[in-house]
Formats: sequence, C-alpha cells, structure tokens
Amino acid sequence: MALKLYGAAMSTCTCRVLTCFHEKSLDFELVPVDLYAGEQKQPPFLAKNPFGQIPVLEDDDITLFESRAITSYVAEKFKGTGYDLIRHENLKEAAMVKVWTEVESHRYNPAIVPIVFQFLVAPLQGNSPDQTIIDANLEKLAKVLDIYEARLSSTKYLAGDFYSLADLHHLPYTFYLMKTPAASVVNERPHVKAWWEDISSRPAFKKLTEGMNYVRK
Amino acid sequence: MALKLYGAAMSTCTCRVLTCFHEKSLDFELVPVDLYAGEQKQPPFLAKNPFGQIPVLEDDDITLFESRAITSYVAEKFKGTGYDLIRHENLKEAAMVKVWTEVESHRYNPAIVPIVFQFLVAPLQGNSPDQTIIDANLEKLAKVLDIYEARLSSTKYLAGDFYSLADLHHLPYTFYLMKTPAASVVNERPHVKAWWEDISSRPAFKKLTEGMNYVRK
Repeated sequence: MALKLYGAAMSTCTCRVLTCFHEKSLDFELVPVDLYAGEQKQPPFLAKNPFGQIPVLEDDDITLFESRAITSYVAEKFKGTGYDLIRHENLKEAAMVKVWTEVESHRYNPAIVPIVFQFLVAPLQGNSPDQTIIDANLEKLAKVLDIYEARLSSTKYLAGDFYSLADLHHLPYTFYLMKTPAASVVNERPHVKAWWEDISSRPAFKKLTEGMNYVRK
Repeated sequence: MALKLYGAAMSTCTCRVLTCFHEKSLDFELVPVDLYAGEQKQPPFLAKNPFGQIPVLEDDDITLFESRAITSYVAEKFKGTGYDLIRHENLKEAAMVKVWTEVESHRYNPAIVPIVFQFLVAPLQGNSPDQTIIDANLEKLAKVLDIYEARLSSTKYLAGDFYSLADLHHLPYTFYLMKTPAASVVNERPHVKAWWEDISSRPAFKKLTEGMNYVRK
C-alpha cells in the first residue's frame, strides 16, 4: 500500500513531509483535509491526531503525526531509497544531522513562525500584522541567522558539506518568509542567501511551490 | 575515552542527557560550566556550541549540542547497552517514540518553559513572576495535558506500554514544575499524575534530583 498523507498543499508542515517523499522518490497519496471547514478538528481526524493538526501519515497499520517525526520515520525506513537525508552510514555526519535538526526545531522555528503568521495569515483572518510581534521575533531570527552565516561560511549546508533533513526542515516556512518584507533577514547574509537559493531550487521542493500560496495575491 | 558532558547539575537540559546516560549505564565525565560567570558565552565554549548554551557532548572527535540531539545520538549509538530508549527492534514502536518525542518538543516544552522560568528563575534575577505569562502558558499546558490524560488512559507511557525517550525528555522541566503552584495541572489529571510518579521514580532520574535545586530554599 502506498503511503497516505492527510494534509493540504499550501500547509508548511504538509510540504515538509512532501519534500521528503520527493527526495526519496516514494509513491504516495495526498488526501486533502479541508482546513477552512475545520475538518482537522472533527472526530474522524482527531482519531488520527488528537492535536487536530495536519499532516498525518498512514503507512500500513502505522499512523503518525508531527511533521518532523514523519520525515524522520520516512528517512530512516527508506534509507536505501532515493537521496540519503540522514547520512545513515556515517556516525559523525548522522550526529550532525541530529544537532542541526534540533536547532531548526528549537531556535529557528519558534522565531520564524510568528513572523510568517503575522505577515501572511493574520490578514486572511481580517487582522493587521502586529509589528511588535514581528520586530521581537525578527530580532531573535537575526541572531540565529548570524550563527547560520558563520556556520555556512565553513560548510555548504548546516550539518556539513551535504544536504540533509536539517536543511530540508527549513524549506516551507522560509519559502513564505521570502514573500514578506522580512526576507531581508536572509538576503543580507551572503552565505545564508546562497544556502537558501541552493536548497530552495532542489527539484523535490520546486515540485511543491506552485501549490504554496496561502498568500492570496 | 569516556563521554564528556559540559553542563551543570541543576540545568534541565543537562539533566535530560544525564538521565539518558544513567538509563544506558554509560561511563561519563561531567565537566561543570560556570553559568554564573558566563563561561558558556566565552570563546572556548562558543567553539563547542555557537549558541552558547549547555550541554555539550564530546565523544571522541564528535562534538554535539542540543540536549535532544545528544540523547537521540546516545540512544542510537548505544542501542544494545542498558535500557532500550528507542525501541530499535520494532518499527511501529520506534515510530511512536519519534511522534511523542516531537510532541514534547513542539507542544509540551514551549508551554512549560515559561511557567518554570517565571516561578523559579525570575525571582533569582530579582523579578516577580509575571502572572500573565504564567496564566497564558498554563492554559496551553492544560490543553496539552488533556490530550496526555486521554492517551495515558489507554497506554502506560506516551509512545505505548513501554518507557522511552519520549517520556524521559519530560523529566527535568516537570520536576521543577512540581515544585510550583502550577503542579496542580499534573495532579488534577489522574493518569498524568500516575505517569509522572512512575517516570520520576526511575533510578536513572532519582540519581540526579538532589542536584536539581536552582530553586533556592
């Protein structure tokens, strides 16, 4: 049975998983969840993920949620298929993938999410972006990216001279950030900018970007 | 060479890693970092972790930071030693460990950290706890624990009927939370309370609790 992913094409967390599928050249079925109708908060979906959020993966009798748990599961289960995202044959490189995956989770993600939300989601909900929230989080993100800039001046990607899950996890939110005035936080840092241009031009991600438009133009 | 951990005995993130070492019955050396002197922000330490935070693990020529990356590395590298924290021989169980490890990272941790900080750290810095921050995060934490309560009514631990890294990662912050008035958020939920009493009484964690006292009594 093919992998079945419940999600939405414009969702950051769904795209994180879909990018992983494409890097691994896996067959899958995307089952759309109607977020505007609140389908993710209804009992059939809550039985799959009690937190009521997409995406959810079904793989035979295994049901998984949390996008980074899904990518980690897929990268591990299919480590011999497609691009190796976790450097499973090299202890030291695999360790660095773990480190920079956690950096994305605990340092990059908490700063970028509120910025993207304020610029792109709040207006859809009829609210103006809250500049105080944007500024506070841009300051945090800038500090994180100063460290990325130094790191990326010595290695081509975050975990080393190889693209990995650690880079991949940054793609969806950064894609949306780059559509906002806050894109300067990336563009002002030459190594970060080059890294972004490199990872965002990978075919596995470019397949998805057409569908990534909760920015209503 | 034994594992060398740079950290501090009262630090939550250091204790997360030390608990893992004890579960795996590993030899290690704890190298104290003087946080009050700001040692973690000085060049020698920043060369190990550019984010300037403890803990850092050195294992031969591998230097790692981010506590959850370290526990994941240790649990994987030493999967045949001591207690198996990642259920490495069972695909489905291992997948559930990944899911609930991510739940701790992205749902539990962001809510509990500000509460513990306000109650226990702010006073050490000469500030009163900010009740608005506490209340907002207690509301978030309560919602997460409602889901834990339902989960723990059907499985003994978060990932299933086996203790795992997913449970372990909750220990240090919850230990401090239980010393505050916010402990009620755990105690009011019978399955969560029983789970907490179970995991916090494991010998691997009890070895550490004497040193966990940034609550100055």
